[in-house]
Amino acid sequence: MAAVKACKILITGANRGLGLEMVKQLSENSCPKHIFATCRDPDGPKSAALRELAKKHPNLITIIRLDADDPCSIKESAKKVGSLVGANGLNLLVNNAAIVANGTIQTSSVEDLKNTFNTNVIGPLLIIREYRPYLQIAAKASGTPGMSSKKAAIINISTVAASMTRMPPIYSHFQTLPYAVSKAGFNMLTVLAAEEVKTDEILCMALHPGWVKTDLGGRDATLEPNESVEGMLKVIGGLTEKQHGGFLDYTGATVTW
Amino acid sequence: MAAVKACKILITGANRGLGLEMVKQLSENSCPKHIFATCRDPDGPKSAALRELAKKHPNLITIIRLDADDPCSIKESAKKVGSLVGANGLNLLVNNAAIVANGTIQTSSVEDLKNTFNTNVIGPLLIIREYRPYLQIAAKASGTPGMSSKKAAIINISTVAASMTRMPPIYSHFQTLPYAVSKAGFNMLTVLAAEEVKTDEILCMALHPGWVKTDLGGRDATLEPNESVEGMLKVIGGLTEKQHGGFLDYTGATVTW
Repeated sequence: MAAVKACKILITGANRGLGLEMVKQLSENSCPKHIFATCRDPDGPKSAALRELAKKHPNLITIIRLDADDPCSIKESAKKVGSLVGANGLNLLVNNAAIVANGTIQTSSVEDLKNTFNTNVIGPLLIIREYRPYLQIAAKASGTPGMSSKKAAIINISTVAASMTRMPPIYSHFQTLPYAVSKAGFNMLTVLAAEEVKTDEILCMALHPGWVKTDLGGRDATLEPNESVEGMLKVIGGLTEKQHGGFLDYTGATVTW
Repeated sequence: MAAVKACKILITGANRGLGLEMVKQLSENSCPKHIFATCRDPDGPKSAALRELAKKHPNLITIIRLDADDPCSIKESAKKVGSLVGANGLNLLVNNAAIVANGTIQTSSVEDLKNTFNTNVIGPLLIIREYRPYLQIAAKASGTPGMSSKKAAIINISTVAASMTRMPPIYSHFQTLPYAVSKAGFNMLTVLAAEEVKTDEILCMALHPGWVKTDLGGRDATLEPNESVEGMLKVIGGLTEKQHGGFLDYTGATVTW
């Protein structure tokens, strides 16, 4: 059972993989809340499972269109969510949407390098910018000191592929240079965002889900999505200001940069 | 006096700041060599000082057009340099060209984020790709085991702004999020390039020049360009396989990721 006690939660890339599993586990949790599950194409075939889940929990899940590669859709989604969250704001923003691209120095395409950067770095930056006012409202409304995911938090779903120390030894098996480069930039975004939002008492950190059997992780991965998400929700639920600006994995262990 | 003993050297962004100072110090060094000094606009007003320097050392310095933001110019420059380096290849590639852009989560423009990524990450990636064959030739031609800048090396001029541990505490004074994010990606590029070229015995590492009084560093910086370059050339001259894939500053101290 997830230990996350945030009331209003937004998860990007919620139509598949870890995002979908996160919505699923959170919707089974008894804590009163609302989940804004965003995805690129809410009416498309790739969002069928999310639509099914939302049908099962109509008062709990709202599907919102948000394409991390489209600044207009980010703005529009924030306006919509802002009109729905009410006076207590948004407690938890999970930047989960990401794309992967394979390649090496020799083989990476310029297009893949640009696309991964746009979706995995610029998208989350604009999402943090647009949703920050609602996180600020939640932080103020909480009336409690310090930081927690129950109060107001930004969780950036990162990867060991973003780690300068962890990626090189596994690179020969995971030749995903465009992805790794974009996620290293995403980690920098996380630590700088943490600096910017700390005066608001909004927690911000990077979280590695483990190597998971999803479209991104592939079949050889070692973890099932439910195991990864159970771990991540436990970690998120237990966060304090000590982990602000940090990089943890789904077991709560620190990942070296 | 610079301790670099590489015979054939290419430096990008060589028309100003640290790049120009590097060409200057290397051209005063007595070691026989040839310097390919590349810049965006060899005939423009911003390259006047480099043209003057090349006039003083006509047998030592060749100015080559290379715009890190233009894949075609990178390819063309490599063809030209390839036709000039001869049978011993290129010993030292210094990826120095970079642009800076200011901003925070709140204020960074999408254009600045894209431009810094293109010039500071995609550019160097394509430069490494195109120049690798000439570095391979130099590594083979050297006939010596191990790694050194005399044999074949890629030096990526990075910054503490790329460090997840060093940037956050200075961020309130250096609000250069687009630059920091791109340079974090550049560090990832460096460690992955190091993995890819190690079988060629080409050394590859990231080097922080210190905070230098250049157009990029601004007037408040603590170091003169000549001090920084003296330090960097000493570090480059002393590199061995121990520093392969590492991150050092101009004094030779390790920078944490």
